[in-house]
Amino acid sequence: VINAEKSEFNEDQATCCQISIRRRELGLEEDKEWLILCSTQFLTGYYWALFDGHGGPSAAVIASNYLHYCIKQKLEEVAGAITEARPPMHVSGRCVCDSDPQFVEEKHIRVEDMVVGALENAFQECDEVIGQEMEATGQTGGCTALAALYLQGKLYVANAGDSRAILVLKDTIVPMSCEFTPETERQRLQHLAFLFPKLLDGEFTRFEFPRRLKGDDVGQKVLYRDYFMEGWGYKLVEKADLKYPLVHGHGKQARLLGTLAVSRGLGDHQLKVIDTNIEVKPFLSCIPKVNIFDFALHDIKENDVLIMATDGLWDILCNKEVAHMARSFLAENKTDPHRFSELAKCLVRRARGKKMGHQWMLDDSREASYDDISVFVVPLHNRDEDC
Amino acid sequence: VINAEKSEFNEDQATCCQISIRRRELGLEEDKEWLILCSTQFLTGYYWALFDGHGGPSAAVIASNYLHYCIKQKLEEVAGAITEARPPMHVSGRCVCDSDPQFVEEKHIRVEDMVVGALENAFQECDEVIGQEMEATGQTGGCTALAALYLQGKLYVANAGDSRAILVLKDTIVPMSCEFTPETERQRLQHLAFLFPKLLDGEFTRFEFPRRLKGDDVGQKVLYRDYFMEGWGYKLVEKADLKYPLVHGHGKQARLLGTLAVSRGLGDHQLKVIDTNIEVKPFLSCIPKVNIFDFALHDIKENDVLIMATDGLWDILCNKEVAHMARSFLAENKTDPHRFSELAKCLVRRARGKKMGHQWMLDDSREASYDDISVFVVPLHNRDEDC
Repeated sequence: VINAEKSEFNEDQATCCQISIRRRELGLEEDKEWLILCSTQFLTGYYWALFDGHGGPSAAVIASNYLHYCIKQKLEEVAGAITEARPPMHVSGRCVCDSDPQFVEEKHIRVEDMVVGALENAFQECDEVIGQEMEATGQTGGCTALAALYLQGKLYVANAGDSRAILVLKDTIVPMSCEFTPETERQRLQHLAFLFPKLLDGEFTRFEFPRRLKGDDVGQKVLYRDYFMEGWGYKLVEKADLKYPLVHGHGKQARLLGTLAVSRGLGDHQLKVIDTNIEVKPFLSCIPKVNIFDFALHDIKENDVLIMATDGLWDILCNKEVAHMARSFLAENKTDPHRFSELAKCLVRRARGKKMGHQWMLDDSREASYDDISVFVVPLHNRDEDC
Repeated sequence: VINAEKSEFNEDQATCCQISIRRRELGLEEDKEWLILCSTQFLTGYYWALFDGHGGPSAAVIASNYLHYCIKQKLEEVAGAITEARPPMHVSGRCVCDSDPQFVEEKHIRVEDMVVGALENAFQECDEVIGQEMEATGQTGGCTALAALYLQGKLYVANAGDSRAILVLKDTIVPMSCEFTPETERQRLQHLAFLFPKLLDGEFTRFEFPRRLKGDDVGQKVLYRDYFMEGWGYKLVEKADLKYPLVHGHGKQARLLGTLAVSRGLGDHQLKVIDTNIEVKPFLSCIPKVNIFDFALHDIKENDVLIMATDGLWDILCNKEVAHMARSFLAENKTDPHRFSELAKCLVRRARGKKMGHQWMLDDSREASYDDISVFVVPLHNRDEDC
């Protein structure tokens, strides 16, 4: 993990650690022998996470210190279930109803669904803790969160924000996350504004138009979309449509309430639209989308890697370019024991560009991004020996 | 299209017609010559639709008579845009801002997005009309809606409910719709109940459990999911959790508020949960998901067909079985000019089974469904000559 050192206060944060999961004691009524067995039973997970802060590094710092603890806690709450072939209806394993195992099977509830649920709940709890902590200490800001967990032969990638994780395998690239931005979540955001118009306090319009409307557009029919539309229609422009749009701009310029470039993440509990009383938090979601990769279904090769990076990398390099660089770099440096971290550095350097006077320029003389850049490169081979 | 004639009052309805789209006049300030040109300019669409009614056939009957009219109207509102290479910012084609074409291009707005928007708006308008009509005449009930539109070399399939459309091509099956049921839309339904708990009036719980909870479960931790979870977790059971779940049951037995088996469709404006004041309509969506098939990208063969059917067919036969029957039937009856409607009859007969005493039985001696069954088989070859 390397930071490009472009900003004075680096807002990217990263964590990498083992997570030891202990089966919790189940209460006093259990017989003692079983209790002892339980308290010595461990599962080990491996965890990597990136946090891209905004409005200061505080939220990213708290999240980088706390999210893995929340995940550990939530996994321990379901530890009894994830060591079984099929999660039991009752966490205690007791059967109140004879056909409970059948109900669980009918719903297709698998061990990995418990891990996904634990990750979803952990993000939510971490967000609450950040809110309390920041309020108590008078800090502000928020961050995206991208977390990878290797557990029991599966890789779980949980994402809330615009960082990205991909697997670069010998012959394919497997995307392990998708980005949550005001553009990708337009319908969710517009729907919320439709359900609770007061959230916009008369200052914004929930409709999407291809550009900001002007006085001359009033009385004309222009292209628009509402919350329920994937397609486009024409709307007769009224004066209220001249307000600033809830979601505005395109690509990297897209903003929620003219304020934020992401629609999911942690923190931002105090964030208000500048010069207004409009809160941004009700529109933000802290819930990650979790993708699973099952190693048992794939033949993992020596140079196969997981690459996680904040948007600073992906703004400059696409998946294919990153995969190409990874494959050729790892093939050329087969014997270097540090080749994975060297590859991470190499990716950061490429996206950072070179300083020419006051500007950072890319090799192809495009202007480089001024964003922080962080990259993890995680080897996937020999997992159980090397991890 | 054939109905299995199992129910006394057939609740399935079907429509098939041409839709002539006329470019609307744009107001008095246009010069006369141009106006005349416009009023003679036509586009022709071809339309097939299935409606599966519940609580009586009324909503299905109104929808089958009215939805194509709404679609025609909405398409005419955008007729100026769908005959251009790229829809203009203003429906009049006038340019208030010089870079308007660039804004439209940046948003990737294409002609097909205008058709999708028109279909989405048409479903919504049709739903409003059904609501007014049924209130005025004291009728009740609702229906699913599956509509296919062939226009300008593309097939649009709009679906709200649990009917299904597939393309059976020579070598592949292309699903053209997905089903909207209380199970597939669980998270949307639970989220609404979370945002507006009053909608449940204290009678239902929004949480999902693998089975209905009992008094013995109180104080225990059992498997559950909330609106934000794709995974599962354990929840300490409180007394309130013993209430009937918002979404309950599995597969064909899944019900929304113990009442409805679908979560999207038209009508049901008056529907209340039996013996309560709880309205079902706030949970229902009338917005279709639209899928597009572009014929220019495929080499369509002589026996390639679109198959649309209500759930009565798909409960008994899967996509593969239907495709297999279609391919072998059409290959065996190459010269029969009625082979497509004969195939529809054949599919209905297979799903209907045979009457043995009081029971309808399938060939493999499973019990057949008692649901209405309707099927369209639409040939895709020689579209422009034969349509």
